[in-house]
Amino acid sequence: MTQNISQLLASKIRDIPDFPKPGIIFKDIMPLLADPHSSRSVYMAMAELFAGYQITHLVSIEARGFIFGAVLSQLLDLPFATVRKPGKLPGKTRQLAYTLEYGEGVLEMQEDSLPAGARVGVVDDVLATGGTVGAACELIRGFGAEPLISVFAIELAFLGGRSHLAGRIEVASLLVID
Amino acid sequence: MTQNISQLLASKIRDIPDFPKPGIIFKDIMPLLADPHSSRSVYMAMAELFAGYQITHLVSIEARGFIFGAVLSQLLDLPFATVRKPGKLPGKTRQLAYTLEYGEGVLEMQEDSLPAGARVGVVDDVLATGGTVGAACELIRGFGAEPLISVFAIELAFLGGRSHLAGRIEVASLLVID
Repeated sequence: MTQNISQLLASKIRDIPDFPKPGIIFKDIMPLLADPHSSRSVYMAMAELFAGYQITHLVSIEARGFIFGAVLSQLLDLPFATVRKPGKLPGKTRQLAYTLEYGEGVLEMQEDSLPAGARVGVVDDVLATGGTVGAACELIRGFGAEPLISVFAIELAFLGGRSHLAGRIEVASLLVID
Repeated sequence: MTQNISQLLASKIRDIPDFPKPGIIFKDIMPLLADPHSSRSVYMAMAELFAGYQITHLVSIEARGFIFGAVLSQLLDLPFATVRKPGKLPGKTRQLAYTLEYGEGVLEMQEDSLPAGARVGVVDDVLATGGTVGAACELIRGFGAEPLISVFAIELAFLGGRSHLAGRIEVASLLVID
């Protein structure tokens, strides 16, 4: 089934060269979103990748991550918390600054997003360098919660995200692009 | 049922004063997202508000709109297209500049987001002044598509969004705050 879902997913994404920067080939999931039958299969296959981790809370990163997080929260019947860029979340928040390939990023979560002891799954559309997910893991640990498994539709293996995240969170993805 | 779902929703949002600006009371839906049973009821009630319009495509606006758009695309079995701020969408896009209360905004959709003749439903978390949704309608019409019904979890009636949108798109919401 994994083979079939990988092929289905591969047929529903398209390469956009030089986005967002020259030399980068962006994986556009718009054709997947435009096909609710195929996207349902992808969401369900992603939900299966959380099996066995006894996750209690699901976290996703803005903005495309919200698409996957919202649907998987329903499929897995789990509370859904969001990680956003600074200034987007209301009320008391926690911030974490982290280093990107060029410059610095900041992530934010609401102060009461996660209880201590939560077993957290992270979901996003694409695993690239893993920099943002690694920072999200640190933010999650700050709540006394445990980041256990991160699930992606697409993994850009040549960017080394999986090794970057080793020891911080497990990684599972539907479609690995070498 | 509408009465019950309004009460349920009201119990799952919280007021955050002075966000994002002093004097504004922000309606935070985080408690709703943290409760997958209640959010399921809300999503299903929102899905019912699209009945009778024979919608063929669903459009939502970043970023919280993606949460509702993604789930409703699954519930309604409809293609899902996104409206984003400029520079976020890959490939060929269409832009629309519009006037906000203070300054100007720009919205963008991918060039092949909607076919001509599409019957479009718009979904978002909150209807405030209606400025962004009105601009999204104009963008949708540019594809030769028809914006028919916009559905919101929460309508801030005192901001006049419904009259702003009159003649552009129908409006339905679960919880109207006077």
